[in-house]
Amino acid sequence: MTLQNRQLKLIARPVGLPKASDFRLDVVPVQEPGEGEVLVRTHFLSLDPAMRGWMREGRSYVPPVGLGEVMRAGGAGEVLESRDPNFQPGDFVVGMTGVQEYAVLPAGSVTRADPLIAPLPTWLGALGMPGMTAYFGLIEVGALKDGETVVVSAAAGAVGSVVGQIAKIKGCRVIGIAGGADKCAHVAGRLGFDAAIDYKSEDVTARLRQLCPKGIDVYFDNVGGDILDACLANLARGARIPLCGAISQYNVTGPIKGPTNYMSLLVNRARMQGFVVFDFYARYPEAVRAIAGWIAEGKLKPHEDIAVGGVEAFTPTLNRLFSGENLGKLVLKL
Amino acid sequence: MTLQNRQLKLIARPVGLPKASDFRLDVVPVQEPGEGEVLVRTHFLSLDPAMRGWMREGRSYVPPVGLGEVMRAGGAGEVLESRDPNFQPGDFVVGMTGVQEYAVLPAGSVTRADPLIAPLPTWLGALGMPGMTAYFGLIEVGALKDGETVVVSAAAGAVGSVVGQIAKIKGCRVIGIAGGADKCAHVAGRLGFDAAIDYKSEDVTARLRQLCPKGIDVYFDNVGGDILDACLANLARGARIPLCGAISQYNVTGPIKGPTNYMSLLVNRARMQGFVVFDFYARYPEAVRAIAGWIAEGKLKPHEDIAVGGVEAFTPTLNRLFSGENLGKLVLKL
Repeated sequence: MTLQNRQLKLIARPVGLPKASDFRLDVVPVQEPGEGEVLVRTHFLSLDPAMRGWMREGRSYVPPVGLGEVMRAGGAGEVLESRDPNFQPGDFVVGMTGVQEYAVLPAGSVTRADPLIAPLPTWLGALGMPGMTAYFGLIEVGALKDGETVVVSAAAGAVGSVVGQIAKIKGCRVIGIAGGADKCAHVAGRLGFDAAIDYKSEDVTARLRQLCPKGIDVYFDNVGGDILDACLANLARGARIPLCGAISQYNVTGPIKGPTNYMSLLVNRARMQGFVVFDFYARYPEAVRAIAGWIAEGKLKPHEDIAVGGVEAFTPTLNRLFSGENLGKLVLKL
Repeated sequence: MTLQNRQLKLIARPVGLPKASDFRLDVVPVQEPGEGEVLVRTHFLSLDPAMRGWMREGRSYVPPVGLGEVMRAGGAGEVLESRDPNFQPGDFVVGMTGVQEYAVLPAGSVTRADPLIAPLPTWLGALGMPGMTAYFGLIEVGALKDGETVVVSAAAGAVGSVVGQIAKIKGCRVIGIAGGADKCAHVAGRLGFDAAIDYKSEDVTARLRQLCPKGIDVYFDNVGGDILDACLANLARGARIPLCGAISQYNVTGPIKGPTNYMSLLVNRARMQGFVVFDFYARYPEAVRAIAGWIAEGKLKPHEDIAVGGVEAFTPTLNRLFSGENLGKLVLKL
């Protein structure tokens, strides 16, 4: 019996929101792993805002996905076959599986996901790329100091929820910005932030002024647009803005909205700094140890939003990120 | 005989370019210095883009000039009377004289300007606030490393011309951006930059791509607007952008133009950082020593653009900064 692999390939560069017709479903026989490779059955696919950038032509921090190629994606799954001494069938791993049911990957490119520490989806969230992004973005790029005032946008999302919880662990005052009453209740309730601002129903600039009378020390920016401007208008002297993303602008077809209030950086001797989490790859074990420790102590609560479907559910599931329907780390259980 | 002091007072908040009717000329008797004060005859007034911000209501790094107050300005002049042991009549000093012919100033607020080191106007330029801004902005905020590629806008101006020359001294490749063929010839000729781009007649983005094939390591931003966007589109990985000013936006009456290409900071792990030169006040002597040394060795050429007139010439002279008519440090000789 030959195992069949269902793969989703990018066939057109999306304009605005990605749609089903930008992809093609192919069914091909599963390949054998070569020397030093492992064959992985994908159980969970990671859905990340950054994927929208990977579909775009042009220079970025990684090359774009080529037309006709399997859509790039992180995934978590089980090793079915291994031709590398470090992995055995039955091991659980995380790696860049792509949007497909089976992936043959170099053993050096996957990492072990220990189910005794956390369930598999958490290894795509708080213990995966979003968790690493939160940890290094906040602590290294944001140069967080104990007791500061921290604001994070997309606060109920995969990265934002971890950013805010780490900041609380570090003794900071934390304000989350999210869309809708449910997310705000989640952030200020279950996640323990000091306050939440609903950008869909509140005046963000005015609320930030109220909630941060001494200004914002670190604004962890996941969204760009008007919320970035509102935070710029409320900086403390010496503030840091780690730029993690700009989800509000990813599907814009016209010109991007630059931050009108950027001169606040000058007045406040503040900085805005971009980063790409892969640059911290060598230090992932440090962050995994820290976050796993906080999870074990009950100080950090991971949260995943698990959709179920085949690889063809990729597009509608991804678009839930852009419509803001997800709570926590969005994954697709195949 | 009572000396009369001609003072220019701000009486209205300018909309767009400052105009004569935003100010009033008053003639009042010269005051006597009190204990610990000096009476200074203003010989040269400093004209700086930052003055436009000082006329604006609202929070900034210094309080705005109040309506009815003498317009704030740096100046260089001669001590006529001193009630402080550190100064004698005949000493030359630099301080915040304001736009007036005579100023009574706390002795602790003025610094000596040694005419044996450089003529008085240079103490308002390369050895004054613009020189300090260039030095600390480039070396500290820009974290300049020898041999990097440096781009500076308003390259023929008071700050830009010193930024570029310091970068050359540090072994960097230096591109200046300026408006018009004369300024570009000055920058690439007399000042020794590697190249100049005329933003009035050239496609800045395309020229930067040609001239900086490996990208820009430090962009010293004096102008904001489209030129900031062009530089953002051409950053090297790990680039730094010291934000010194945004002269292109100072007289805009509508919304400010935010940098549309700011996401290049993320892709390139780059940072944009504001600063205010006064924060480096304690280290001015270090910068003055360095710059005075380079001037003495002939490695750094100060250049002042000297207008002559009474205090009422302040507004039209200041506006030459915004129309781009000045070359080097603009001063008004009273």
